[in-house]
Amino acid sequence: MRGPEALLAEALGTMALLAVVVGSGIMGEMLAPGLPALALLANAAATAAGLYVLITLIGPISGAHFNPCVTLLMLAGRELGVLQATGYVIAQVLGAIAGVLLAHAMFDQTLLQIGTQVRTGGPQWLSECIATAGLLATIAVARRHAATQIPQLVAGYIFAAYWFTASTSFANPAVTLARAFTDTFAGIRPQDVAGFVLAQLAATSVAALLFVGKSSKL
Amino acid sequence: MRGPEALLAEALGTMALLAVVVGSGIMGEMLAPGLPALALLANAAATAAGLYVLITLIGPISGAHFNPCVTLLMLAGRELGVLQATGYVIAQVLGAIAGVLLAHAMFDQTLLQIGTQVRTGGPQWLSECIATAGLLATIAVARRHAATQIPQLVAGYIFAAYWFTASTSFANPAVTLARAFTDTFAGIRPQDVAGFVLAQLAATSVAALLFVGKSSKL
Amino acid sequence: MRGPEALLAEALGTMALLAVVVGSGIMGEMLAPGLPALALLANAAATAAGLYVLITLIGPISGAHFNPCVTLLMLAGRELGVLQATGYVIAQVLGAIAGVLLAHAMFDQTLLQIGTQVRTGGPQWLSECIATAGLLATIAVARRHAATQIPQLVAGYIFAAYWFTASTSFANPAVTLARAFTDTFAGIRPQDVAGFVLAQLAATSVAALLFVGKSSKL
Amino acid sequence: MRGPEALLAEALGTMALLAVVVGSGIMGEMLAPGLPALALLANAAATAAGLYVLITLIGPISGAHFNPCVTLLMLAGRELGVLQATGYVIAQVLGAIAGVLLAHAMFDQTLLQIGTQVRTGGPQWLSECIATAGLLATIAVARRHAATQIPQLVAGYIFAAYWFTASTSFANPAVTLARAFTDTFAGIRPQDVAGFVLAQLAATSVAALLFVGKSSKL
Repeated sequence: MRGPEALLAEALGTMALLAVVVGSGIMGEMLAPGLPALALLANAAATAAGLYVLITLIGPISGAHFNPCVTLLMLAGRELGVLQATGYVIAQVLGAIAGVLLAHAMFDQTLLQIGTQVRTGGPQWLSECIATAGLLATIAVARRHAATQIPQLVAGYIFAAYWFTASTSFANPAVTLARAFTDTFAGIRPQDVAGFVLAQLAATSVAALLFVGKSSKL
Repeated sequence: MRGPEALLAEALGTMALLAVVVGSGIMGEMLAPGLPALALLANAAATAAGLYVLITLIGPISGAHFNPCVTLLMLAGRELGVLQATGYVIAQVLGAIAGVLLAHAMFDQTLLQIGTQVRTGGPQWLSECIATAGLLATIAVARRHAATQIPQLVAGYIFAAYWFTASTSFANPAVTLARAFTDTFAGIRPQDVAGFVLAQLAATSVAALLFVGKSSKL
Repeated sequence: MRGPEALLAEALGTMALLAVVVGSGIMGEMLAPGLPALALLANAAATAAGLYVLITLIGPISGAHFNPCVTLLMLAGRELGVLQATGYVIAQVLGAIAGVLLAHAMFDQTLLQIGTQVRTGGPQWLSECIATAGLLATIAVARRHAATQIPQLVAGYIFAAYWFTASTSFANPAVTLARAFTDTFAGIRPQDVAGFVLAQLAATSVAALLFVGKSSKL
Repeated sequence: MRGPEALLAEALGTMALLAVVVGSGIMGEMLAPGLPALALLANAAATAAGLYVLITLIGPISGAHFNPCVTLLMLAGRELGVLQATGYVIAQVLGAIAGVLLAHAMFDQTLLQIGTQVRTGGPQWLSECIATAGLLATIAVARRHAATQIPQLVAGYIFAAYWFTASTSFANPAVTLARAFTDTFAGIRPQDVAGFVLAQLAATSVAALLFVGKSSKL
């Protein structure tokens, strides 16, 4: 069982991830007003680069989940206990919110904001289901036969998913919740968080059924 | 001989590939109206990232063909039997069409559409010949002396081919057929499918002559 | 202890880095007037590509610091002596200024310019603290368990940091000073240099406290 | 000594390289009229991806020079004889011109064109000197301690060099000559070819002096 430094690593890693996601979104919006494709391209590329770095560095310390859905999948595979999984999720949520505040502070914005971007409805929820299922499938299959490439694979997957899903692929309840605290490019209305998180958890359940087995590595 | 899980892997992989190709095309068109270069840049980058992930993950299961031309080349090299190759092609075509529907569903579009984008004429067919020959050459040569890098090589090749061919490089009969069912950025008119597929098959014949030999690995 | 070829390598490497940073900024500004997001995207991608190449090639010769903050961190970990560290910093500063002049010469500009872009205030300094701390953390952690990937990790980090910090991540006193000598995309007003450098040094002190230990590799 | 298949590989590889360079330039210009930064970004990314693929695949067959300056450097290091080097250069030039014609054919353009883009003057020649010297230094140093990464390093270098030099980095006499036969994005006026080639050869002489030694690998 991993000790307290794993919790700290999850918190710091998720904080850094959100600083990248929200910060690069603000920069993109600021420098490309009226051309959201360019903002999304920079946002996706910066997120992918950040994920590659963070998972490579923090993977050996905590597993670099940064995502309650990943932690739940590992819990289902008994790689973590309930207590530790709970700690991971709390660390991820607190880290994610701190990352949003940090991005706001760097860009001289009101620290705590409330998202106003509407993200709701069946197609958005389907997008989040697909995005999350794809992420978990990537991780689960990679652990079986491409374990050393997980950082690049997750980065590549998320880059593609920003573009091929209609929701730009949140795929992470901690990230979704934290993005309700920003009214910038990456924001989401608080009332839309539950739908996204439910879709993500539904996909996680399916992934657990598919990928967690007695003899499997997960 | 590979079992039924290989067929499933081909179907799911090709479905995911088409969801990426069509989905990122819709997103690009939506966010960059009137600036198709930006849509194509995002489309190409997302497709390359997706291919890298999918080939890495599914390669060990089915070979990750996702493309009847690749399957035909392997058939010519006697790495697959006729029966299995037929199964692969059916799985690829069904998967590809499912991927288009999935992209439409995520972006809240009519599920089944008919392409209207004109893609015909000698230069387009030449482009498809070159695109397909280049893809098969990349795979055949990489298998001889860079087998572990095939996912990155195919991704890099396709990224370049989206830009250097006039047809944006379909290079895949299953993909071509499926893209006749979308009237978005990545679409093609049904009546233009045959020309593209014939060009792709012509290139496959040439590649089979060049790269399949008694003593070669292929 | 490394000999004079290490000093030359630091000077040439930092020169090349600045030529890339300033040169690609000029090109971006020239080809995308009024669309700074596109200039920054090209600037960030070119810088990342350049860093990957330079660190891979020069790492075995001098460690490829190119940055007084990195040299100070190594000094704190006793990997360099004071004399050699001083030599490194002088080589970096001279190399950086030479790189700016080289970029100006290639683009037919006045060789020595004075920056006029305002970069000051708390959020900018916070950005530089975060940018520098993140860079040093990346290097320090990577040396422990991902040493062979340092070039790609630093490249990926800097790409992300160009976008997620409000200052576009100078994160390097030699680079900051040298960029005061250009009045192009990458420039900074001379009176704003001190604030940036102090923020970078503050972050370096914190990183030294966190990452330099008796038993650590650093 | 390498046989005739090496000459064929040099010709085909250089042909493919030029098809990528010229083809992606035409596509960029076509899809991003009035926004050359976007065309150059796609052009640079496609070229880098193409170089990575081509050098990986053809390296083991001919060394994947695709460039008379590289062949001259190898000749200076006695890795090739004069006869074989002459064969390589002829193959590169013929291949390069064929690649331009192929790009024109795919984009339904007049096959043989004459470039009209003015590329002359001291800053342009300086850019070509720097671009070529940097390319040769990358190759020479990589051969000493990063030989397995040469494809990625050359790709990364050329991506950066497209942006940080004022000439967009031709850095190759065969490429320069061939680009005089296109009047598209990548073209050059015939009367400007000599200046570029002389600058490239001057840089090659310096590189040969610096990197070719009795005990060196080159």
